[in-house]
Amino acid sequence: MERTFIKDIAPKVGEKVRLSGWVYVVRDHGKITFLDLVDGSGMVQCIGENLEKVTPQTVIEIEGLVKKRPEKLINPKLALGDLEIEISSLKILSKASEMPFDIGKEDLDLELPTLLDYRALTMRHPKQKAILKIQTEVVDSFREALKAKDFVEFQAPSIIPEVPEGGAQVFEVKYFDHKTYLAQSPQLYKQIMVGVFERVFSVNKIFRAEPSVTTRHLTEVVSLDAEFGFIDSWLDVAEMAEYTIKYIFESVKKNCAEEIKLLGASLPVVSDKIPVVKLREAQEIIFKRTGVDHRTEKDLAPEDEREICKWAMEEKGSELVFVSHFPTKSRPFYTYPDPDEPEFNQGFDLIGKGVEWLTGGRRIENYETLVAHAKEWKVDTKKIDIYLQAFKYGMPPEGGFAFGAERITQGIIGLKNIREATAFPRDMERVDTRL
Amino acid sequence: MERTFIKDIAPKVGEKVRLSGWVYVVRDHGKITFLDLVDGSGMVQCIGENLEKVTPQTVIEIEGLVKKRPEKLINPKLALGDLEIEISSLKILSKASEMPFDIGKEDLDLELPTLLDYRALTMRHPKQKAILKIQTEVVDSFREALKAKDFVEFQAPSIIPEVPEGGAQVFEVKYFDHKTYLAQSPQLYKQIMVGVFERVFSVNKIFRAEPSVTTRHLTEVVSLDAEFGFIDSWLDVAEMAEYTIKYIFESVKKNCAEEIKLLGASLPVVSDKIPVVKLREAQEIIFKRTGVDHRTEKDLAPEDEREICKWAMEEKGSELVFVSHFPTKSRPFYTYPDPDEPEFNQGFDLIGKGVEWLTGGRRIENYETLVAHAKEWKVDTKKIDIYLQAFKYGMPPEGGFAFGAERITQGIIGLKNIREATAFPRDMERVDTRL
Repeated sequence: MERTFIKDIAPKVGEKVRLSGWVYVVRDHGKITFLDLVDGSGMVQCIGENLEKVTPQTVIEIEGLVKKRPEKLINPKLALGDLEIEISSLKILSKASEMPFDIGKEDLDLELPTLLDYRALTMRHPKQKAILKIQTEVVDSFREALKAKDFVEFQAPSIIPEVPEGGAQVFEVKYFDHKTYLAQSPQLYKQIMVGVFERVFSVNKIFRAEPSVTTRHLTEVVSLDAEFGFIDSWLDVAEMAEYTIKYIFESVKKNCAEEIKLLGASLPVVSDKIPVVKLREAQEIIFKRTGVDHRTEKDLAPEDEREICKWAMEEKGSELVFVSHFPTKSRPFYTYPDPDEPEFNQGFDLIGKGVEWLTGGRRIENYETLVAHAKEWKVDTKKIDIYLQAFKYGMPPEGGFAFGAERITQGIIGLKNIREATAFPRDMERVDTRL
Repeated sequence: MERTFIKDIAPKVGEKVRLSGWVYVVRDHGKITFLDLVDGSGMVQCIGENLEKVTPQTVIEIEGLVKKRPEKLINPKLALGDLEIEISSLKILSKASEMPFDIGKEDLDLELPTLLDYRALTMRHPKQKAILKIQTEVVDSFREALKAKDFVEFQAPSIIPEVPEGGAQVFEVKYFDHKTYLAQSPQLYKQIMVGVFERVFSVNKIFRAEPSVTTRHLTEVVSLDAEFGFIDSWLDVAEMAEYTIKYIFESVKKNCAEEIKLLGASLPVVSDKIPVVKLREAQEIIFKRTGVDHRTEKDLAPEDEREICKWAMEEKGSELVFVSHFPTKSRPFYTYPDPDEPEFNQGFDLIGKGVEWLTGGRRIENYETLVAHAKEWKVDTKKIDIYLQAFKYGMPPEGGFAFGAERITQGIIGLKNIREATAFPRDMERVDTRL
């Protein structure tokens, strides 16, 4: 008999099927055994008499009859809660060892280190799977959003010859006899590609040698990057970022409804138009609201990020807010200084639920200005030769934005720790196992 | 006036439009200037009188009238070859320096080092763009093929604690105070994920410290990986690989018809069913055809790969051929030995046009056997703890396959050197600029 995927049993009521999968939960009632069987497509309850003993996570193959469950035994929480399988034969394919914790609980309730020490196993819990499905949807819908706007995907390199964003938080790679680095961002490459395809995006690993352990930093991040030419102003870039983020929210809402429900998550509230404030305006608002005077600081402190989000929600009905115009010197050399106030630049952050979700801005497209900035910022111009070429030989006004898939997954679901937002988180203390 | 993308001008004959883009070719005829304008969406010829001098790659904005070209002046090679723009005004947005070579030629005809020294610029040539578009389509259609079979995309890590495939060709990363490596493959991680989603795929960078400079190796590769459970035999894996490869060919044929034509490429010829031979059978065939006796070698030599492809084309009408059953000891510890002849394993390569295109196989799913193999292969089992977990706690019979996006792009187009098959190739001698 051909195997049937669990998701496909509904039209087969009254028929015999062959199913394969993992035992999720076993309930023994003397002669009768109830077990929840999980495969890649779904979960269904199976019932059998005098079955061979099976334990959770054991891989089995069964044959049985698809039946409607009596009305009062329907489980409304499960997609196939109105069906069950009456097992006629059961074969064990791979016996699981005794579980180190109860994976059948509604919540795993494990401390983070345990959650990660048993990562191969904890990811099999429905809520952990739901998180990963949402992450996949975030990445997928990012691509879809930008392809709909004629952006072309390209592959950015990970090994790079120079650190354009400056020094300390970079990993070195011994490259034969040379020193190279792991990319902190595909920034220079996506700008080069604007000269090729005009509108480009990439989904690419970036690496930050973050020397501290926080709830929102990883050393390895899936960066979602976009860049495009022929903008009229930096506001075009913010608008494209807003379109993209909203597209992602809508896709997650639509395609991960079950996962969102299971996790009890609620997507961020956004207004028709996400509010935009300059850094100095934001600091002024915060000063007026709280008395905390950060009006000359070059960036928002974490508590400022939380406060400006509170303001945005209360005054503008949006959990997200753009903050723009950071001091020119505090941002990378390629950021475009505002012609009206050159000590501030046309870069922006998108702050959501109190943390930075996305960063973007207009870039300098003029070759001479760019070279002068690079030198002033102490970047080795010889090593970014092909980047500078792109500007020497014709580059339109352009800009772009970037955000981490993990950070946005964390934000959408409201996870306390970013390590839960990805399959294999890396930090200072852990690369799969503890260091 | 709103900007119009070049691809959208066809319905606007007789209307005035604003276009932006790069000057591709300029032809000066005294008072009258012809120029080909390129944007992210296409190319169109523009004509103007008494225009300001423009040079190739200069970025301009024009306003002009969309006109039908007289029948005899239609350029059948261009998508919009029947249209032209009568320029009424022209504004220079970014002036390009004098070009180091003629980018307007039908073929760039540059030596490879020059092609890469000017990478930001050479990628703007239509044929180079066509290659990159095909690469993008390869990656995209890989995803599409597997999503259609209910595979879930996941993000594999790049920084790993141990080298499961063995030693020399790996890059070390100084990870705070620890030694880690750049992944040579997402192998262990995709196997772990079979325990989570049953069917998974990833698009992920892999890194090989290839100490030689060949026409088919890069140090950084975009690896397309798939892995799935509940197989009946390794032939299920080969079949899924065949489905995927054919899906990619069909997608490239359909969605990159213009690019394929421009490059004069022809997609590989494949039979209804790609032929499958065991290594020893292949060596026997080669011996009979050529007299070269490699019948006890543990792998195919490059000339063997060419010969077996010739055989497959002549005898089976396929430019692709599966070769399976390599000596168990010559493949990584997780490869499944054939129960009928345990000195050979159920791994396979897909050879196309004389080179390896894809590699795959069934894996060991039994925990005890896997641990024993890992030890025999001298892998540090402590460092692959979470991998072994996946098998300790229930794993179905499973297998998978992997291939490089660059290698397949090279193969589809028939490029001499793999460095042309990607935007930013890395090798022993070059990371953007020469080392």
